[in-house]
Amino acid sequence: MAKKNTQHFKGEYDRIKAQGGIAFPEAMVKAWLAERGVRVPVGRVARTADEASKIGAGIGYPVVIKVSSDRMLHKTESGAVKLGVKGPGELRREFGDMRARANDSMRHRGFEGVLVEEQVPPGVEMIVGLQNDPHFGPVLMVGMGGILTDLLEDVAFRMLPVARRDVREMLRGLKGRALLGGFRGAEPCDVQALEDTILTIARLGADIAPYFESADFNPVIVHPKGAVVVDAKVVLSDVVRPRVLSAGKPHTGHLESFFNPASVAVIGASASPGKIGNVIVDSLVNYEFKGRIYPINPNRETIMGVKCYPSLDALPEAPELAVMVVDLSEGPRLMKELAANGTHALLVVSGGGKELGGSREHIEREMTRLARELDVRVVGPNCIGAFDGRSRFDSFFHSHERLLRPPAGSMSFITQSGTWGCGFLEAAEVSGVSRMVSYGNRVDVDEGDLIACLAADENTSVVGSYIEGLGDGRKFLAAARRSIKEHGKPVVAFKTGRNARSANAAVSHTGAYGGTYAVYEGVLRQAGVITTDSFHELFAACQALALQPAAAGPRAAMLSNGAGPMVNALDLFPARGLELVRLARPSVRAMRDHFSFFYLVENPVDVTGSASAEDYEFVIRTLLDDPKVDVIMPFFVFQDTPLDESIVERMATLNRLADKPIVGCAAGGPYTARMVRALEEVGVPVLPDVAQWTAAASALIEWGRIKKGR
Amino acid sequence: MAKKNTQHFKGEYDRIKAQGGIAFPEAMVKAWLAERGVRVPVGRVARTADEASKIGAGIGYPVVIKVSSDRMLHKTESGAVKLGVKGPGELRREFGDMRARANDSMRHRGFEGVLVEEQVPPGVEMIVGLQNDPHFGPVLMVGMGGILTDLLEDVAFRMLPVARRDVREMLRGLKGRALLGGFRGAEPCDVQALEDTILTIARLGADIAPYFESADFNPVIVHPKGAVVVDAKVVLSDVVRPRVLSAGKPHTGHLESFFNPASVAVIGASASPGKIGNVIVDSLVNYEFKGRIYPINPNRETIMGVKCYPSLDALPEAPELAVMVVDLSEGPRLMKELAANGTHALLVVSGGGKELGGSREHIEREMTRLARELDVRVVGPNCIGAFDGRSRFDSFFHSHERLLRPPAGSMSFITQSGTWGCGFLEAAEVSGVSRMVSYGNRVDVDEGDLIACLAADENTSVVGSYIEGLGDGRKFLAAARRSIKEHGKPVVAFKTGRNARSANAAVSHTGAYGGTYAVYEGVLRQAGVITTDSFHELFAACQALALQPAAAGPRAAMLSNGAGPMVNALDLFPARGLELVRLARPSVRAMRDHFSFFYLVENPVDVTGSASAEDYEFVIRTLLDDPKVDVIMPFFVFQDTPLDESIVERMATLNRLADKPIVGCAAGGPYTARMVRALEEVGVPVLPDVAQWTAAASALIEWGRIKKGR
Repeated sequence: MAKKNTQHFKGEYDRIKAQGGIAFPEAMVKAWLAERGVRVPVGRVARTADEASKIGAGIGYPVVIKVSSDRMLHKTESGAVKLGVKGPGELRREFGDMRARANDSMRHRGFEGVLVEEQVPPGVEMIVGLQNDPHFGPVLMVGMGGILTDLLEDVAFRMLPVARRDVREMLRGLKGRALLGGFRGAEPCDVQALEDTILTIARLGADIAPYFESADFNPVIVHPKGAVVVDAKVVLSDVVRPRVLSAGKPHTGHLESFFNPASVAVIGASASPGKIGNVIVDSLVNYEFKGRIYPINPNRETIMGVKCYPSLDALPEAPELAVMVVDLSEGPRLMKELAANGTHALLVVSGGGKELGGSREHIEREMTRLARELDVRVVGPNCIGAFDGRSRFDSFFHSHERLLRPPAGSMSFITQSGTWGCGFLEAAEVSGVSRMVSYGNRVDVDEGDLIACLAADENTSVVGSYIEGLGDGRKFLAAARRSIKEHGKPVVAFKTGRNARSANAAVSHTGAYGGTYAVYEGVLRQAGVITTDSFHELFAACQALALQPAAAGPRAAMLSNGAGPMVNALDLFPARGLELVRLARPSVRAMRDHFSFFYLVENPVDVTGSASAEDYEFVIRTLLDDPKVDVIMPFFVFQDTPLDESIVERMATLNRLADKPIVGCAAGGPYTARMVRALEEVGVPVLPDVAQWTAAASALIEWGRIKKGR
Repeated sequence: MAKKNTQHFKGEYDRIKAQGGIAFPEAMVKAWLAERGVRVPVGRVARTADEASKIGAGIGYPVVIKVSSDRMLHKTESGAVKLGVKGPGELRREFGDMRARANDSMRHRGFEGVLVEEQVPPGVEMIVGLQNDPHFGPVLMVGMGGILTDLLEDVAFRMLPVARRDVREMLRGLKGRALLGGFRGAEPCDVQALEDTILTIARLGADIAPYFESADFNPVIVHPKGAVVVDAKVVLSDVVRPRVLSAGKPHTGHLESFFNPASVAVIGASASPGKIGNVIVDSLVNYEFKGRIYPINPNRETIMGVKCYPSLDALPEAPELAVMVVDLSEGPRLMKELAANGTHALLVVSGGGKELGGSREHIEREMTRLARELDVRVVGPNCIGAFDGRSRFDSFFHSHERLLRPPAGSMSFITQSGTWGCGFLEAAEVSGVSRMVSYGNRVDVDEGDLIACLAADENTSVVGSYIEGLGDGRKFLAAARRSIKEHGKPVVAFKTGRNARSANAAVSHTGAYGGTYAVYEGVLRQAGVITTDSFHELFAACQALALQPAAAGPRAAMLSNGAGPMVNALDLFPARGLELVRLARPSVRAMRDHFSFFYLVENPVDVTGSASAEDYEFVIRTLLDDPKVDVIMPFFVFQDTPLDESIVERMATLNRLADKPIVGCAAGGPYTARMVRALEEVGVPVLPDVAQWTAAASALIEWGRIKKGR
């Protein structure tokens, strides 16, 4: 059979919609799968009891019968499925009952007959699903079936289209995956057939993407040979969504103006200390920013010695960037004035937009429209804005006394939370930042635009992203993919709001998991984005990626003059994809010969409280030479007296030599903080806790894997 | 039937051992359970085919048959179990086969016949197990049965004896617990009957504790009415362990000498800066410690101006405490000298003990023996020793420049890791420490002794404990229980080394989980110890418990001038037992009337970047008055200019007023650190990350629950 084309699906969708249906009938979907080579149970739809019994005889008993309908979503619960029908008598009886009940419950409509099918022998049950996600468009779900789906929420997601590699990763990520491998003496399942089935469902999903809301293929039963799609439910979308697979393209026009503007107007500049419009001018005028500054305030001649202007019109030039702190309702008017004068960048610090609902939402929609129409790019509203480590521009309403501006570095960071924006800048006090943007309610410039802009920034080597919820998820991921593949720059994300649940639980199993973190986790991973589990782990990962090379593999070696934290770290190794490597024998011998018998020279290496800086250097040199080691993880108890301060210079040298990543950890008070700082200054990240330490090492391993194309 | 007594179990054990058996036969164990009122399948052991078929007729078909033996551990795998035997013919055939195979495989011994039993209808399968744990003695395991046991490692442990409350907590903690409640339309299970069954198995376990190594009751099938123990396997211990249930008693004699000694001898005092024996003398002589100090070094007249002595014998008095830094092999000799002179406390900093194996292990064993014999208490070896916040005594080989000694406070801490000991002291720079002990290889003084000592210390209000592995686990838990119940002082633990797996996997399912973190987690929880998941969370929990009252319940309210971290925290709420409460309507109204329309006044309360210290005060006062709120969690973006520094005084006042706990969080650079310190000084803990913040709140809730007797 030829594969059905779009015209066909469109035709069926229209026909079913016209007659009030809400789903593609099961038999139809199974036929589509069958013609693409997927195994479905042998069977046919019967309109009469005679026909049913003829089909039954052809298949052989026992059989399964199900109502075929375009509007029944919960067949099992409605008594519209009967398993194990043993012979023709029972089949005729059940057929009659089923037709009666179906006609009754569906008010004499939608009943298309009864599907009579072979009963598929037991095997490992999986669920495969499709969902039209509001942020990512059509996504594929794979999970363990039966009770495990809901008991464990054991599901994985990827965006369509998917490659076989994606499907394999999905299966590998399931808690119940051991069932497929031949659990407790059972024969292993035909995973190849399962993969084929999933890939075919995914391709069908892409073809019918404009027409479905949600779909369950549940169960898909996997046997030692072959896999069978036993049930199929595809719920129609309310309207046809023709371009559901195409993503918005990142638009980076004028974005440079937010980082290195030759001139900046501050609309709502204030002379009163403590006011937002005052702190922003202070930061621009009194520190390192070199651009021209135009405070706008009709009531003042000057602010901080800088000439003040009554309005945009009065300025001697069109400023490259305008920063706005006046009431948001002024936004649309100001955008028109800016456009008329030739300014294309507006940074809106003011809050009070859609988070308040009502008419305020309308203002934001108007600004979105104007941004497109007038080509005025808008960052914000409701944000702290932008920072550039080289131009020293920032739009922050935080005094320099309270918020450190870090030096120029190669980390960049975009964030929905201004608070974590501040957190990132201060954490980067030593290692430095290229660019940071807090983009708030994103009426125009969004995550996708910013990732694209930062990937192209020559000073940026890694982009971090704090996400509560993405706007255009496909656009974000497309930009992230380009950053990774074309620019060779890793993207690291921390997504919060993980307990969110979909309101679609009633429609399908798959719908119940739509909008959960499982979707984000799956699609981020698919795009090669490195995910983390806290803000501090996000920072640690970015810092490690900025300062250290990628790891060639997962094999880690630890050393310390205090063993406790290494024991802690080991607990986190499996979940973080780190492997405690057995060192090469020459490495062990070299250390055994060199050190006192007190030192424990297997991995993790315990150089004890007696260790000097020279001892650390010896171990690290040994590990650098050991072909089995991919990443070196020293913990430093700087409080221990024998560990002299030559450690800094020694680590600087080792770090220059190293083609392997080195990631350190240390915990303590002011002296430890001073030493950590000194090591960061020579390019060795030293994290303050074990969670960050292992997250940093894990990110370097992930990045190595992603760069190699996994 | 009368319950069997110890004499009976002992008799059976001896009999089976004598004939080379390794397990109590299944039918025997089931009989013990039946006489205690537990349901087991109807059935009997048949010695002949005739007998079998008579039993089968009595029960009614289908039946299950199993080899009855005292030495077969893996019946299913050995073909020694046959389900669904449909009639007498099949039964005779199977009986013959089974006897043949059994005789064969057991070399004509151990075969006691074939157990013929009713076939129990399907239901929810559970596993119940018993295990003789090396640290905790006999423990009970409960888990989901069938594939879930191993697929999810879904098991919970408690020490014997257990109360019904313990069993309920075990069941509540299982990932698969939903299956018992009537999953996906199934009828709910008879949880009461399951609890009864588990409790009876636990009581039997206590009675036969001297005789078993490990036991599986797997499956226990639970129905809507009743529960049946379908299979029972009890593997015998190698030798009878008569006192397996009794714990060593904490021994606190002379322990005060480690904290507030009137005089201290330093054996191995050194005049060379940087040497361990030098740093220790420096810390005692040149800082705040007021006791008499006797450096011992035969080659010096004085060290740091203090008179030096050639040996212990030469001292003008018997020192209350001796600190030893010379080679460990000197230990036994020194202990005898100390005892002869009347000194009862020796703190051994020196390492090089059992961690090196061989003859070094022997030294430690000798010191253990001498400690008992001579009544010389020993802390260490291989440790950094002790600290007392009031006497200012410490034995640390870390200079004051590198390691801060915190002020006197009410937290105490015991630790197997000196590194985390340093970490704790420095983290407590503001909130202070009563006592800290790093006890290393614990040849004498162990965790149980120390917990008992600290619980009795009037200045201690909370005891933290970093554990890699406990020595006498029952003693530790007994001491912890007393601390909690009699002294009203919480005990908080962080256990690492969580990936350890038992070598007993071959013997039983339960054995496979022995020694895992699941055992520690269960028994710590059972004793009322608060558990945490990282060192920093351990510290946060201790600090919160030291500074704040317990929470009356789990209902938390958050407020912040930056929403991001509150979104993060919400993700952690469910796992940490925190509930986001819906505020009382008058609270919301009061805030709505008071604040600008920009502020979001539902929980979590978002006072926006415009918030002043007064705004924080208003919200916190409102939450203090709200009867629905149990714990108040402010996040402070101190970088935001409107948040003026009067926040410190306001929080001090609120904190004095508060009968509810307040736990804060803030992240940032030096200014933030200064503000955090100021708030800690007035008694408000402010943690640096969301994980610690929620862990602190969680500990206060846990402590409230534990104090109320759960």
